[in-house]
Amino acid sequence: MALWDMAELRPEQIVRLEEDGPAVVLLDQRRLPDDVVEVRCTSAMDVADAIRTMVVRGAPAIGVAAAYGLALAALRGDDLAEAERVLASSRPTAVNLPWALAQMREEPTPERARVLHEDEVDRCRRMAAHAAELFEPGTRALTHCNAGGLATGGYGSAVGALRAAAERGLLERVLVDETRPLLQGARLTAWELEQADIPHAVIADSAAGSLMARGEVDLVVTGADRIAANGDTANKIGTYSLAVLAAHHEIPFYVVAPTSTVDRETRDGSEIPIEERDPAEVTSRFPARNPAFDVTPAALIAAIVTEHGVHRPPFSF
Amino acid sequence: MALWDMAELRPEQIVRLEEDGPAVVLLDQRRLPDDVVEVRCTSAMDVADAIRTMVVRGAPAIGVAAAYGLALAALRGDDLAEAERVLASSRPTAVNLPWALAQMREEPTPERARVLHEDEVDRCRRMAAHAAELFEPGTRALTHCNAGGLATGGYGSAVGALRAAAERGLLERVLVDETRPLLQGARLTAWELEQADIPHAVIADSAAGSLMARGEVDLVVTGADRIAANGDTANKIGTYSLAVLAAHHEIPFYVVAPTSTVDRETRDGSEIPIEERDPAEVTSRFPARNPAFDVTPAALIAAIVTEHGVHRPPFSF
Repeated sequence: MALWDMAELRPEQIVRLEEDGPAVVLLDQRRLPDDVVEVRCTSAMDVADAIRTMVVRGAPAIGVAAAYGLALAALRGDDLAEAERVLASSRPTAVNLPWALAQMREEPTPERARVLHEDEVDRCRRMAAHAAELFEPGTRALTHCNAGGLATGGYGSAVGALRAAAERGLLERVLVDETRPLLQGARLTAWELEQADIPHAVIADSAAGSLMARGEVDLVVTGADRIAANGDTANKIGTYSLAVLAAHHEIPFYVVAPTSTVDRETRDGSEIPIEERDPAEVTSRFPARNPAFDVTPAALIAAIVTEHGVHRPPFSF
Repeated sequence: MALWDMAELRPEQIVRLEEDGPAVVLLDQRRLPDDVVEVRCTSAMDVADAIRTMVVRGAPAIGVAAAYGLALAALRGDDLAEAERVLASSRPTAVNLPWALAQMREEPTPERARVLHEDEVDRCRRMAAHAAELFEPGTRALTHCNAGGLATGGYGSAVGALRAAAERGLLERVLVDETRPLLQGARLTAWELEQADIPHAVIADSAAGSLMARGEVDLVVTGADRIAANGDTANKIGTYSLAVLAAHHEIPFYVVAPTSTVDRETRDGSEIPIEERDPAEVTSRFPARNPAFDVTPAALIAAIVTEHGVHRPPFSF
C-alpha cells in the first residue's frame, strides 16, 4: 500500500469490512511505522483476538472494529450473542467497545457498521473544530500515546485537534511522549504528524515534566478511553502523571474524546476497570508491573472537548 | 566472569587499573545484564570515550574512572594537562568528574586513584547507614535510573540505602523506573536488586504517578549527578517529574549522594549544565529531543543524605 505520501489515512485503510470473503481487514498497528501490513479477520473471534493483541487499539477504533466484527458474524450466520460476548470481553477499559456493540444489536449489518464508523470520524472533525478554539498563535502542544486517526478509525481526537489547529496556523510544534511500553507515541503519533507535515519531536515520557518547567509546553492534549459521568478520565498509563505535572506548572490539560467514550453509568474514576497487561511488555528479564491505563481526576482537567463543544468544569455528563 | 551468583559486585569488577599493560578496565554497562563483558582502555582518551559512550556511567563511577584514567596517563608518561582536559570534557553534568581530577592532580598515581575509589565506596556504606533511618518496617520504595554499585564504583548510593534498609528488615519491595531511553533501571538496578535478593518490579516511567495515587509508594529515593549549594539537584531525566508527583501525593522524596557530588561553586540548579544527548537514543525514525538530566528544586526534596548524615531543608552546602 502506498500510504506514505498521504496527509491523512483514509478510514477504510485503518479498518473495513469486506463482504466478499467476508473479512474485517485491519491495518496492523503493532508493526507501524516500519511495516505497513494488514490483518484479515474472518470471524468475530479473530477480531476479538486482534483487539486483545492490539492489532487495532484506541477506544473509538476498537468500537468500530467490534461493530464490523458483529456484522461479520451476522454475514456468516454465527451466534450473535456469542459473538458479542467474545468481542465485549476482548479489552476492559475502553467503553466504546460495549457502546458500539449495543449500537449494532438491532441491525448488525455491514451498512450499520459503516454508518457507525463514518459517524465516529465525523465526530472527530467536529471535536477538532471545537478544540482548535483552545489554541493561540504559536501554541506548543504536548500529547501522549496515539489519539490519532489510527485510534479513532480516521482523523483523530487529540491529533484531530492538532490537525485543526495547524490548519488554522495556530500550532508551532508538538512534543510527543513516546509512550512506553508499546511506544504508540513514537511509532503512531509521530508517523501521523509526519504525514500531516506538523512539526514534532518525540521525547522520553519522563522528560515531559522538565520541558514544562523550561516553559516549552503551552498545553497538553490527550484522548480518552472512558470518561465517567463526573469527568474523571481513564486513558493510557502516564496521562495522570502528565495532568499532575501540567497542574503544577499551571499549563492547561485538555481531553478530546467523542461522546461514545463517555460512560454515564460510571459515576467516577474509581469504578473504571484498569487493564493490567503482560509484564513482559515492560521487561521479560525481571519482575515487572504493567498497568495499561490510569485515571485522571476531573479536578486536573481544564476542559473536555466532545463533538458537542468545549465542556468546562464542573463536568456533568 | 561468574558475576551472577554474587550478592554484590566487587568494586574492582566495576572499574580497576591494571598496571601490567597498563589499562583501565571497565565493566561494559551498556551491555548488562545480557552480556557481562569488559572494555580495556589503554589511554586517557580511551577512558574519556568510555565515559562519553556510557560504558561507565553514574556520577561517582565516572569520577573514579577519570581518576584511574589520569593515573594511566601518568604511568604512560603522557601530557597530564592534556589527559585531564580530555577526561574533564567527556560529559558535562556530573560534578564528580572535575572533582576527582582535582583530587588526583597532586599525586596522579595508581595508589591515589585506588584510595579515591575505596573512599567513594566507603562513603556509600556510611550514606546507606544514615539513609536507612528514613525507612520504616514494610517500606515500599520507588527509585529511578541506577544509583547502584555500578554507578558509584561499588555498593551504591540510593541502591545502597535500599540494601541497608533490606538488611535491617525495613524494605518490603522496590518499584524500579525502567528509565528511558537507556533503561538503566530495567537493566542495571533490577539486576543489582536481583543479586541482592531484594523484591522488586520494573515499571514504565509513566506508571510511577498512578502507582503513587494507588498508595503503593511510601518514599522515593534517587542518586544525584550534581547538587548545588542550595540543594537543587541534577539527576537523570525524569527525576524532577518524580519529585513533583511525590510532592502532589505527600510522599517524601530523598536524594542519597556523596559530598563528591556536591558543587559548592554552583549556587543553584539554574547554573548546572544539562547534557542533551543524541536524539537517536529516543528514536532514529522521527525528530526527537533527548535531555539526559533535569534539575529538582530543593523545595521538592525532603532530605539529602550524604556520608555525613541526613540533611533536612533548608539546605546549605
